[in-house]
Amino acid sequence: MTEAKPKFTLILFSGDFDKVMAALTLANAAAGREMEVSIFFTFWGMTLLREKNLPTENTLENMFKTMMPEGVEAIGLSKMNFLGLGSQMLKKLIQDKDGQTASDLFNMAMERKIRFIACEASLKLLGITPAELIKYEHLEIGGVDAFWEHALDSKTTLFI
Amino acid sequence: MTEAKPKFTLILFSGDFDKVMAALTLANAAAGREMEVSIFFTFWGMTLLREKNLPTENTLENMFKTMMPEGVEAIGLSKMNFLGLGSQMLKKLIQDKDGQTASDLFNMAMERKIRFIACEASLKLLGITPAELIKYEHLEIGGVDAFWEHALDSKTTLFI
Amino acid sequence: MTEAKPKFTLILFSGDFDKVMAALTLANAAAGREMEVSIFFTFWGMTLLREKNLPTENTLENMFKTMMPEGVEAIGLSKMNFLGLGSQMLKKLIQDKDGQTASDLFNMAMERKIRFIACEASLKLLGITPAELIKYEHLEIGGVDAFWEHALDSKTTLFI
Repeated sequence: MTEAKPKFTLILFSGDFDKVMAALTLANAAAGREMEVSIFFTFWGMTLLREKNLPTENTLENMFKTMMPEGVEAIGLSKMNFLGLGSQMLKKLIQDKDGQTASDLFNMAMERKIRFIACEASLKLLGITPAELIKYEHLEIGGVDAFWEHALDSKTTLFI
Repeated sequence: MTEAKPKFTLILFSGDFDKVMAALTLANAAAGREMEVSIFFTFWGMTLLREKNLPTENTLENMFKTMMPEGVEAIGLSKMNFLGLGSQMLKKLIQDKDGQTASDLFNMAMERKIRFIACEASLKLLGITPAELIKYEHLEIGGVDAFWEHALDSKTTLFI
Repeated sequence: MTEAKPKFTLILFSGDFDKVMAALTLANAAAGREMEVSIFFTFWGMTLLREKNLPTENTLENMFKTMMPEGVEAIGLSKMNFLGLGSQMLKKLIQDKDGQTASDLFNMAMERKIRFIACEASLKLLGITPAELIKYEHLEIGGVDAFWEHALDSKTTLFI
């Protein structure tokens, strides 16, 4: 890997609270170590980049968009979610211990200038428009080829 | 990585419609970029390689085999599946947008001559015989050592 | 990669029976090939390292700890678990075929001296104390930086 800073590329496919926390913890730690970090948000992971939900003319698309959580505060656990109870419990547990919740980790990722790539195909499929995404200087929209350009240059690439 | 074409090895453990779509999209894009691509199908991912379900003499094995989906058309979502409704909605959404469904992506992978390796231990465990698998020139049966031979030669290896 | 033995670092986030089996199979095969292997156990994966459950003074923590399975014998499938029936069926199927169950694979990992790292943040969050963990010479407690030190030195890194 010679002298260049090692790169880390993460595909964030999951929108589950627990997996998102693990993913962002890995990404933030990498950025904290001066690694270059890119997160490619796709499918359920895309829910983290949504700031609002604008209705479209496609009923099916609207149903799907409404069912998906909106932003990092709305996501649930991958296991033992119990209609949201599990994630509420976990959030409370984090709070009690002055730990960082998914929201904090997401904000830290932006403070650390981690590059965010919103998957073009997911946006199109789910009918999410750029206007519905969060505002962030280092957010761009890209296709799977953008992912490969990062991955081929990376020391570590993970799918979460 | 010198001059050789970079390799991508994918372990497809999941048989979920959404994860399979993501996995095949990554694999097809890599093959489209002239990368060498191998997919190691294991456990639920094995369902994609099944063309038919032949009954065996082991009742438990038969129950398990019958419960697993048969082929790429039969798989469901990892989230919000609602007994199949979620995946039907998503398939309809893809169709409405002239997008590629999991079936299209699976066929494209074969057109692009991506190497398929069916996990030997999964076949044995689930009682699936080679006669039940799809016919495809670049499909072979291999063990975990076959996986490692590909992975150790790869630029990128993902578990999905 | 020159002459050194290639390294494999695995983040075991999942505590699902089927994923754990896949993860340990990959890890044991790598160790069998003389690769250096480290497993970083985090979140649900932490359940594998628990030997017992000691109650704490935090009710919420106790609830969470009680809901999580204790040790490798107690874990269930990621799909078709049917309140444990699916994993019982699968365990029976493995037994019928003289195959290795998750327990056997876990013991083999320790025989092969695979390095286990228990995620410090997960322990703290879930209120699990070192006294509740299995006794194993090559088990240490480490943070996300310990993970990165291993990953940056690895040929292959997977998140399962």
